[in-house]
Amino acid sequence: MSERIHATYWLETGDDPRHAADVIAGEQSSGTFVALPGETPELKARSGARVERLEMLETVDTPSLPGGMKSEVYTRCTLELSWPIENFGASLPNLMSTIAGNLFELRQVSGLRLTGLKLPASFAAAYPGPAFGIDGTRKLSGVTHGPLIGTIIKPSVGLSPEETAQQVRELVEGGIDFIKDDELQADGSHCPFDERVKAVMRVVNEHADRTGKKAMVAFNVTGDLDQMRRRHDLVLAQGGTCVMAVLNSIGLVGLHELRKHAQVPIHAHRAGWGYMSRSPELGWDYAPWQMIWRLAGADHLHVNGLRNKFSESDESVIAAARAVLAPVMPDAPMTAMPVFSSGQTGLQAADTYAALGRADLIHTAGGGIFGHPQGVAAGVEALREAWVAAIEGVPLEKHAERNPALRAALGFWK
Amino acid sequence: MSERIHATYWLETGDDPRHAADVIAGEQSSGTFVALPGETPELKARSGARVERLEMLETVDTPSLPGGMKSEVYTRCTLELSWPIENFGASLPNLMSTIAGNLFELRQVSGLRLTGLKLPASFAAAYPGPAFGIDGTRKLSGVTHGPLIGTIIKPSVGLSPEETAQQVRELVEGGIDFIKDDELQADGSHCPFDERVKAVMRVVNEHADRTGKKAMVAFNVTGDLDQMRRRHDLVLAQGGTCVMAVLNSIGLVGLHELRKHAQVPIHAHRAGWGYMSRSPELGWDYAPWQMIWRLAGADHLHVNGLRNKFSESDESVIAAARAVLAPVMPDAPMTAMPVFSSGQTGLQAADTYAALGRADLIHTAGGGIFGHPQGVAAGVEALREAWVAAIEGVPLEKHAERNPALRAALGFWK
Repeated sequence: MSERIHATYWLETGDDPRHAADVIAGEQSSGTFVALPGETPELKARSGARVERLEMLETVDTPSLPGGMKSEVYTRCTLELSWPIENFGASLPNLMSTIAGNLFELRQVSGLRLTGLKLPASFAAAYPGPAFGIDGTRKLSGVTHGPLIGTIIKPSVGLSPEETAQQVRELVEGGIDFIKDDELQADGSHCPFDERVKAVMRVVNEHADRTGKKAMVAFNVTGDLDQMRRRHDLVLAQGGTCVMAVLNSIGLVGLHELRKHAQVPIHAHRAGWGYMSRSPELGWDYAPWQMIWRLAGADHLHVNGLRNKFSESDESVIAAARAVLAPVMPDAPMTAMPVFSSGQTGLQAADTYAALGRADLIHTAGGGIFGHPQGVAAGVEALREAWVAAIEGVPLEKHAERNPALRAALGFWK
Repeated sequence: MSERIHATYWLETGDDPRHAADVIAGEQSSGTFVALPGETPELKARSGARVERLEMLETVDTPSLPGGMKSEVYTRCTLELSWPIENFGASLPNLMSTIAGNLFELRQVSGLRLTGLKLPASFAAAYPGPAFGIDGTRKLSGVTHGPLIGTIIKPSVGLSPEETAQQVRELVEGGIDFIKDDELQADGSHCPFDERVKAVMRVVNEHADRTGKKAMVAFNVTGDLDQMRRRHDLVLAQGGTCVMAVLNSIGLVGLHELRKHAQVPIHAHRAGWGYMSRSPELGWDYAPWQMIWRLAGADHLHVNGLRNKFSESDESVIAAARAVLAPVMPDAPMTAMPVFSSGQTGLQAADTYAALGRADLIHTAGGGIFGHPQGVAAGVEALREAWVAAIEGVPLEKHAERNPALRAALGFWK
């Protein structure tokens, strides 16, 4: 039997939902607006997208998005389509054109969101997935259990290489596991990539030589392909253990090529995710989106954080993190590490752990570490101890009784 | 004086707009949610994004997008920000992270759309722009004036290579200038890329040898980088004169690399544009988006068409086409060719020409050509004659009096 690709959508339509489903299936496969002689029943049966499921949810009397057909009633439903792999082969870029192409612009559509994706085995054969994932990241960072306690260099941009290295010195001396460039920090003339990496790795390597613990630093290599390769090579040559790339900025070809070249984990940033997801009636859920990038090789994937400072709900954050930890397919888990950030402190540890049932993640805090009255080391320790409490199922206040750093942190975290 | 990057947004906020503007500027440059010791006034002055303009437009009492801060009133305004180029250098991927990164997710934002972009000269020095553009496309296609009359192979997928070539035979014998693969047609096992190109180019070359006219065929090379390069080389070896790529599917690195490799024009498809633009209160206007892709090397850019079958308004279509024809910057025009499609016939020629004042474009019609009662050649001739009438300022009905193909077309176009 032929392999098929399955995609699920939340659809709102002013049309008869069955007709709308057929139009979408047609537009994204063999169809056209005008009936053409070449579109035979045999061709449609072979190459047409198939409506696998159409479940009505509710009706509303105004359309969520403008520009579509006018109607008295707009029906919301769950739509599942499938395509034969013969249409375009096991290709992620062409998968994108098919499951997330022109369909959002159809007049029959007054709301459309891609909510799910199920891929056949050919995709796992065609794409490598993460080279390091959870196990590789734990091995390189030396963090054998619990989350990697991390932070982001701040201010995001503006520090010189030496100022950056000075901040990194405080952090590694404080026992941090993971540090990342902000996604806005790239290769500006005020903080050139090469100088930054050399200055930072000097500090990281010195500390590692002295203590045996090497913090993982995700240097933002985002750029044109030659730049990314060259920057990766510099990171590697300087003893670095991670590179970061902004997925929406480099695109699928960018990540695929970086994955082929990289010898360290790829920390994948989702900047721009908001324009693809902030309208609940349009765009992408995180689950199908992150699956595509994991196949292409992302080792770490940002998922925001509980009670974050952005607009995303906790429910959505947890769904995203669960998606990153779920297998891409049964025989090809390709598990990546979710990265929690944005307004994070130890106060989110217990709820995050309870929701995921595991601590295979990176938890980054900025103010939650730097703001500690006893300094950065105490900030790192407090966040780590909050996770110990979470994993052991001990209430935070109780665990704080035997840990002064955590006790002090509770005051300013709240 | 330092070069600066300017981006303009339509913003809706439940916050004091001045505060919201500062938060956005901070988030996308030196800021953080928590005041940090490193963010000195000197650093802010040097590296902070600057609020250049903030103009109130109106207020509404419900937020356009959910998840943001609650308020009694939401203010809509025009916001212009600028960044010093020292922050990230003349890099398109890092430009993306900066102007269209995390800001869409901010709680202060209940609507945000990137409406304009102005780049400094360094970007024109760092990126090549289209290698062919309008002049190169005219030269290769032999169409010295007026639009390239084009069509898209339909059904989109499902035809075999030989069936595709058969359709191409009808089209080239009908005098067509331009043919493209559908964006869903890639390298599926039922219509493998190599076989399709060979079968189609055999027909195109035979016709060119006989008549001197070689139709430009945009073969969809969208795929991983090695695949795109290899497919491009095959097109070139077979005498082809154009390749097509789906921008959102390959990403900026993909187009940049394809541009470096390609020896024929790159026909850029915007499939997926809907999820970035269909909500008026979120995402991207076409003007800033297409500018980025032109810098990276797109020769042709899709702009939908007047009275199209999708949900886009005519006003938006014309704004998009004007943007593609406008210079990227005064000393680096990098002009690309807009591609009109979707439900197009000769009936849109006059309005399209009136709105643009020029015919440096590709006008593709499917049913508008294939549906002609006298056959494909008459369909091509009718569309071309509709453009002659438009350019000469002659009413279509009047021009049809001396052209039987156009006269017959008017019946079925309406």
